[in-house]
Amino acid sequence: MEPLYEGKAKRLYATDDPNVLRMEYKDEATAFNALKKAEFANKGRLNTAITLAIYRMLEARGVETHLVDKVDDINLLVKKVDILLVEVIVRNFAAGSFCKRVGVEEGTQFKQPIVEFSYKSDEYGDPLINEDYAREMGLATPEECAELKRKALVVNEVMVDFFQRCGLKLVDFKIEFGRTKDDEAKIVLADEISPDTCRLWDLETGKKLDKDRFRQDLGDVMEAYEEVLKRVEKELS
Amino acid sequence: MEPLYEGKAKRLYATDDPNVLRMEYKDEATAFNALKKAEFANKGRLNTAITLAIYRMLEARGVETHLVDKVDDINLLVKKVDILLVEVIVRNFAAGSFCKRVGVEEGTQFKQPIVEFSYKSDEYGDPLINEDYAREMGLATPEECAELKRKALVVNEVMVDFFQRCGLKLVDFKIEFGRTKDDEAKIVLADEISPDTCRLWDLETGKKLDKDRFRQDLGDVMEAYEEVLKRVEKELS
Repeated sequence: MEPLYEGKAKRLYATDDPNVLRMEYKDEATAFNALKKAEFANKGRLNTAITLAIYRMLEARGVETHLVDKVDDINLLVKKVDILLVEVIVRNFAAGSFCKRVGVEEGTQFKQPIVEFSYKSDEYGDPLINEDYAREMGLATPEECAELKRKALVVNEVMVDFFQRCGLKLVDFKIEFGRTKDDEAKIVLADEISPDTCRLWDLETGKKLDKDRFRQDLGDVMEAYEEVLKRVEKELS
Repeated sequence: MEPLYEGKAKRLYATDDPNVLRMEYKDEATAFNALKKAEFANKGRLNTAITLAIYRMLEARGVETHLVDKVDDINLLVKKVDILLVEVIVRNFAAGSFCKRVGVEEGTQFKQPIVEFSYKSDEYGDPLINEDYAREMGLATPEECAELKRKALVVNEVMVDFFQRCGLKLVDFKIEFGRTKDDEAKIVLADEISPDTCRLWDLETGKKLDKDRFRQDLGDVMEAYEEVLKRVEKELS
């Protein structure tokens, strides 16, 4: 069966229900806009399990997501949505592109979270944009941008608290949203929430337990993802 | 006499009045964060005259600037201010870094102006930032960012109209603001407004009459600046 869409980390397939897709998590890892690539056995399984657990936790706290159900270890059923081409990044501590861009030291804690938008475009490397860019490029209206920001801050609040209980510091994360294809046309959380899309540092040791282990060649990449899943499942049990 | 400060295009000197500085416009041109450099005879004189004319026009329309008086062809007296490390860019048509960043065609007209902030830093190449970055980096409070944006849009409205009457399309521009050192501590327009800091295209022919002639090796750089000054002075006479 051919996928309807294949991204860097996931494939989407049709199902019998025209409003529902099957999302398969791949073992492939990419970084720096796919300039660096590798395959990690179990990555698909780990990110499926982590995303599923986080989505269920968020849903329980009133955050709507595209999640419908679990199929198996590497497949989730999700609502068919139109993905907004605006990615939302929330930062609690300085890391990654923020540090490179403005020279602030990694790990610097922000007084309030930083929210930023990027243009979802592999061709242009997901560049930082602002609300005016989103409006003029037809990516999102000012009202939609405000809604994305509001929702992202709720997701942040819930996740900071949750990961804290897992002994993890939520440094930053990237989320995507989609508009449901039904009459409601609601904006819901889509894509994934995993160590691929969140920076998570051990609260005690500061050890990085996310994709930076791959980006920065720190080794033990899947061991870190396993550790995150173990703590998430323990906290939710 | 030693300058208090030397930038890429101007030098600042003390005067007898501790609240007033002399700003000397240099003939040097730089582009791409000073990777490209050249000297153009008369550039200092042209940019002094254009800035002076535009500042007086803006002041007449209620926009406060750091301008005190003219000294001579390449020197202006200006209020001593603390320059805010947030530069403000206003875009009416797509050009320059906007096109490179998101792949929109040069010359695309925006429905409403785009306002963006950049971090004034030679070391980091004046990178695009947003209000949250400005707040957390201590560059400007949310209230100050709102004030900068409001003021920049007024400057844009006045200048779009003025340059239109000069037969010029105001594509985009970069402005800087400073806080006066007196008790009022007001935020006023500072730095310069010239073909170094504005993109200006001939309304009829589309010919570029600004620093892009230098950036893109289009030739006749100073002839273009002369043409801008001629039209500005004619319109103001």
